[in-house]
Amino acid sequence: MLKFFYSPGSCALASQIALEDAGADYELIRLDFKAGEQRGVDYLAVNPKGRVPALVTGRGILTENPAILAFIAQSFPEAELAPLDDAFAFGELQAFNSYLCSTVHVAHAHGRRGSRWATQQSSFEDMQQKVPENMAACFGLIEQSMFKGPWVMGDKYTVADPYLFTIARWLEGDGVDVKEYPKVSDHLNRMTQLESVQRALSRQSQ
Amino acid sequence: MLKFFYSPGSCALASQIALEDAGADYELIRLDFKAGEQRGVDYLAVNPKGRVPALVTGRGILTENPAILAFIAQSFPEAELAPLDDAFAFGELQAFNSYLCSTVHVAHAHGRRGSRWATQQSSFEDMQQKVPENMAACFGLIEQSMFKGPWVMGDKYTVADPYLFTIARWLEGDGVDVKEYPKVSDHLNRMTQLESVQRALSRQSQ
Ligand SMILES: N[C@@H](CCC(=O)N[C@@H](CS)C(=O)NCC(=O)O)C(=O)O
Ligand SMILES: N[C@@H](CCC(=O)N[C@@H](CS)C(=O)NCC(=O)O)C(=O)O
Repeated sequence: MLKFFYSPGSCALASQIALEDAGADYELIRLDFKAGEQRGVDYLAVNPKGRVPALVTGRGILTENPAILAFIAQSFPEAELAPLDDAFAFGELQAFNSYLCSTVHVAHAHGRRGSRWATQQSSFEDMQQKVPENMAACFGLIEQSMFKGPWVMGDKYTVADPYLFTIARWLEGDGVDVKEYPKVSDHLNRMTQLESVQRALSRQSQ
Repeated sequence: MLKFFYSPGSCALASQIALEDAGADYELIRLDFKAGEQRGVDYLAVNPKGRVPALVTGRGILTENPAILAFIAQSFPEAELAPLDDAFAFGELQAFNSYLCSTVHVAHAHGRRGSRWATQQSSFEDMQQKVPENMAACFGLIEQSMFKGPWVMGDKYTVADPYLFTIARWLEGDGVDVKEYPKVSDHLNRMTQLESVQRALSRQSQ
């Protein structure tokens, strides 16, 4: 059986929702970030990067949301979570997920994880202050140039949807009003109602 | 014909080498970053993110190295640039590329692009000072836990190889001695000698 490592409130929710969408059987393992479990020897043996998510499969371990999301889509083709037979459409999906991972998630992380990239308290505060502006710019681009509607990639739900949902849930804490982005805001509401999303969230709180 | 937008010294080299590996026919279009061409209206119509690389195909435009690299591998299967029929092996490749994109490239970018995430000169300097430590930590992990050898993903060359090569070339400017990482250092030397790499670099300087 698959094992999935997560921490509440983290980006791991994206891949966990995709596991639910796929109907995958998985064991959910919670890490306590406040207790530093992500940097404990046990977890570093799973993921030497000390981050979630990590997916333990019969073949080995996968990390990084874009990789895990594509793996789930490819491993459960009957769930139709990605355009698997169309290299260009698959590329567009990967481009969206890569943008979330490398730019949007990173913009958000500067609010609480400034110590990854600097050492001074004044730098952390400076970074924190820029988070709302950067997240607003990212979501402005998503709203205007990337989101096809009704789902991220158009008519069909894909693994980009739980990933956008996961990061859009952070906007309020980042000081950005999601209502400024009508398509993203509507998407957030529709996602919240999906059974797979409700199951993922309820398993996290058990 | 494909069109490929790049800027010298940038991460776009990774995808351009993959185009050469695939034997693709492409027009190479240079952007002058110093003149701000990446933020000009013409280029924003190609890539609203104002970044390179961007690949213009007959179907539309793709951005983001991990997405373009996978697209090239899938579009030129005879070049055997990725394990296309093995979802787990493909996932490992995507995980590696996603790590380069979201963590290693981002760690490097804090040296020169601090204004993306902060506003004060003191923060930029603080970020710059942490670049060697962060790049060393990333390459320590790559050397010890990720690089399989002789190529990144093991016996077969994949699109992860030009991507690692492209970022490893930045180490010297980041104040990190690549010789501290014998496998990466040997990889860098072998990559430099590949015909595809030499063609990509020579087309950039024409
Ligand atoms: N690029 C990675 C980023 C993973 C990541 O940064 N995860 C965060 C949670 S959102 C984490 O594990 N942080 C723990 C820490 O920094 O100690 C991905 O998309 O999977
Ligand atoms: N996540 C993107 C990052 C692209 C990126 O940041 N490119 C840099 C060059 S290495 C760029 O275009 N910078 C121009 C600027 O910041 O103005 C990818 O991997 O393709």
